[in-house]
Amino acid sequence: MLTNRFEHPLNEKVRIYLRLEYLMRQMSHASQLNDQWQHQIFFRALFDLLEILDQIQLKAELAKDLDKLRAKLKTWMDIDAVDQSALLAVLDQIDLAHHQLITANRLGQELREDRFLNSIKQRFSIPGGSCCFDLPALHHWLHLPLAHKQNDMANWLRQIHELHEALNLWLRLTRDFGQHQPQVARGGFFQYDAEDASLLRLEICPSYGVYPMISGHRGRFAIRFLPFEEGASIADTIEFKLAIC
Amino acid sequence: MLTNRFEHPLNEKVRIYLRLEYLMRQMSHASQLNDQWQHQIFFRALFDLLEILDQIQLKAELAKDLDKLRAKLKTWMDIDAVDQSALLAVLDQIDLAHHQLITANRLGQELREDRFLNSIKQRFSIPGGSCCFDLPALHHWLHLPLAHKQNDMANWLRQIHELHEALNLWLRLTRDFGQHQPQVARGGFFQYDAEDASLLRLEICPSYGVYPMISGHRGRFAIRFLPFEEGASIADTIEFKLAIC
Repeated sequence: MLTNRFEHPLNEKVRIYLRLEYLMRQMSHASQLNDQWQHQIFFRALFDLLEILDQIQLKAELAKDLDKLRAKLKTWMDIDAVDQSALLAVLDQIDLAHHQLITANRLGQELREDRFLNSIKQRFSIPGGSCCFDLPALHHWLHLPLAHKQNDMANWLRQIHELHEALNLWLRLTRDFGQHQPQVARGGFFQYDAEDASLLRLEICPSYGVYPMISGHRGRFAIRFLPFEEGASIADTIEFKLAIC
Repeated sequence: MLTNRFEHPLNEKVRIYLRLEYLMRQMSHASQLNDQWQHQIFFRALFDLLEILDQIQLKAELAKDLDKLRAKLKTWMDIDAVDQSALLAVLDQIDLAHHQLITANRLGQELREDRFLNSIKQRFSIPGGSCCFDLPALHHWLHLPLAHKQNDMANWLRQIHELHEALNLWLRLTRDFGQHQPQVARGGFFQYDAEDASLLRLEICPSYGVYPMISGHRGRFAIRFLPFEEGASIADTIEFKLAIC
């Protein structure tokens, strides 16, 4: 059965984590440059990422969150029902990601200081501002051999490797904590308590023709399903699956 | 031989024409959605295009420029060295594009009024702002069948068809007016007079490792070749080809 998947952060930090994950996924994919315009996606995601990193002290926050996860997992040690070798393996992964993260340079610092990236950054925010006459240096770079460009992109990605690893690990484990449970929205509405949750994950059949608008914060959240087509009616009862992570 | 091609507008209007052409090329290509992130390119180019159209009275300007081209080409009638049937065909194309352009609605008006496009437009300018939780309506749309999405994109592109045709025709003919001539820059510098020109087109071998920074306006322009690699030296004489259109 076809399923539409949605995620929603329940606090500001997780909101930023999801944005960064989304940008890094774009960068990783676009760095292959299989398509002639993918450099647009890569550079825009890179500059968006740097802008977010400028706004918050991500390194300390993420390290703290990994610490919390580690403490939570350690309470599972010596519980018979828990696969201890798998648990130890995960704890090792956390230790490694945590260590690499806190010993890394300021996140994105090399990217901020990169001469080429700096030379093209400003114009990227102008509408249509990455034309060849706006950015002749970029245009020259685009003419370089594919292997050269892919190598440059791999280098730039390497500068955020520690962030990538730590963030992916935290998000993967956090997602794993939640289990999808069947739920029903009546009149397109659903609300629920979620003490200390970070993230909602929702699965819904596309045939309902609706998408969820989620509001809320730790403690309590509400989901309102809206019709995608203007003026369309929505089903009295909408079945969906929800994981509270 | 490998060649790097650069273009540079010699007035503000042509600068906008080239930006719009660049955005529409991105949209046309990305509307095929062969790659999972191409919707990013499509929507961003679309919103950039609308922003530019909001800033200037493009329709009147472009119609006037087509008129000027037509007048210029008409002076070639009854000149023996000119292929008259080809000339008449081009004049017909101009008539058609001009007519379609001036009888079209306000450029991009349907796109401005589109409910779905309006619902996602604002968030697109936030760094990482096209995440599923920021734009659940977009996320729903992305889950629609490929044929449905391609059909939507083709519809949106149709709304700027007249602009696309008129702009492409004007740029194609303007480019055709110029002929590439060999030139030499000494000490990385070149300057020239160009009465009434609109556009420079430059071809240079990538092995020089330089890119052109072009400044100037109708009447006079200067090209300074800069090394792409920091601190690299540049050749005493740089051969390149230049078309003044």
